[in-house]
Amino acid sequence: MRRASITSLAASIVLAVFAGNAPGQQSSADVPQFTNDGKLLRPQGYREWIFVTSGLGMTYGARPSTSQEADPRFDNVFVSRAAYDSFLKQGTWPEKTVFVLEIRTSHSKESINRGGHFQGDVDGVEVEVKDSSRFKGKWGFFDFSEGKTSAAPLPASAACYSCHAEHGAVDNTFVQFYPTLLQVAKTKGTVKSEAKSE
Amino acid sequence: MRRASITSLAASIVLAVFAGNAPGQQSSADVPQFTNDGKLLRPQGYREWIFVTSGLGMTYGARPSTSQEADPRFDNVFVSRAAYDSFLKQGTWPEKTVFVLEIRTSHSKESINRGGHFQGDVDGVEVEVKDSSRFKGKWGFFDFSEGKTSAAPLPASAACYSCHAEHGAVDNTFVQFYPTLLQVAKTKGTVKSEAKSE
Repeated sequence: MRRASITSLAASIVLAVFAGNAPGQQSSADVPQFTNDGKLLRPQGYREWIFVTSGLGMTYGARPSTSQEADPRFDNVFVSRAAYDSFLKQGTWPEKTVFVLEIRTSHSKESINRGGHFQGDVDGVEVEVKDSSRFKGKWGFFDFSEGKTSAAPLPASAACYSCHAEHGAVDNTFVQFYPTLLQVAKTKGTVKSEAKSE
Repeated sequence: MRRASITSLAASIVLAVFAGNAPGQQSSADVPQFTNDGKLLRPQGYREWIFVTSGLGMTYGARPSTSQEADPRFDNVFVSRAAYDSFLKQGTWPEKTVFVLEIRTSHSKESINRGGHFQGDVDGVEVEVKDSSRFKGKWGFFDFSEGKTSAAPLPASAACYSCHAEHGAVDNTFVQFYPTLLQVAKTKGTVKSEAKSE
């Protein structure tokens, strides 16, 4: 009886760990959670996921706006751990991959800092999810700005869909800007040919 | 006999998880490893630790150098997961805390990017370790530039020791530049008083 209880306890811990809730860690809930009407719940705990890269003031148009030049935003990119582990092995993203783009204000010349920029408050959260059963192009995009706790997929006319599909170096994602993952993709041969030559 | 084997297997998995090697994950070896003569081994797998923040071109002197202005570096800050979990509870850093400052080149106007900066190759790795049994001021600093696989502590005369001790907002670390952890420290009341007013 005692041995059975220990077995049961050990099995429970193992199951909890496989579910991503290791003892002493917050749940990172890194599988996308949808409401019955197809809204994505705001990802929790993404700051404890895998950091992919960050950029400052990145723009894609012909000219950055004046406000962007004067007050650039940081963007931090995180991906769910299971998706990251899969990418290391395959060089592509599995179903249920979740990317979070966290946008933050930048500051300078505070405390001992005298130049350059460091990060301030969150100014936006955007999410990309791979789910072929839900999205025609396999990937859906969501905007969690203004503290939203759930969000419907952005309409297919939103620029993110065409831009990611056309310019993403690997599987709809901008791996050309992710230095560690770009090396993985090159090794696995999964970089789109037009992105390779740029 | 069969039940005993299952118990043993389950216990082994549980032990492996508590040691930080969850199934399907690379070992992140986030406890500092020293050689017999006191050199720190280069931290492995720190990209899978907790991302704290990043900055671009941050400088602390009277004026940034011309090269820094023209070709700024990103710095990404990572901390070991166990230390992070402890900080969330206490607002201070436990023994064996390891910080990694990863310095990367920046690029602009490649692929579809038209402005701002994104990250390039690693240009330096600096490490800070808390170990009261080894370091007089509790913390030691290490420079792993040029691909070093081990490093002796920097001499006590190095600027990092006095700067961190004098200006670090929490426990010798620049939590004033770590937006999520600064909120934790404020809640826990662990921000140094002179840093609060800045």
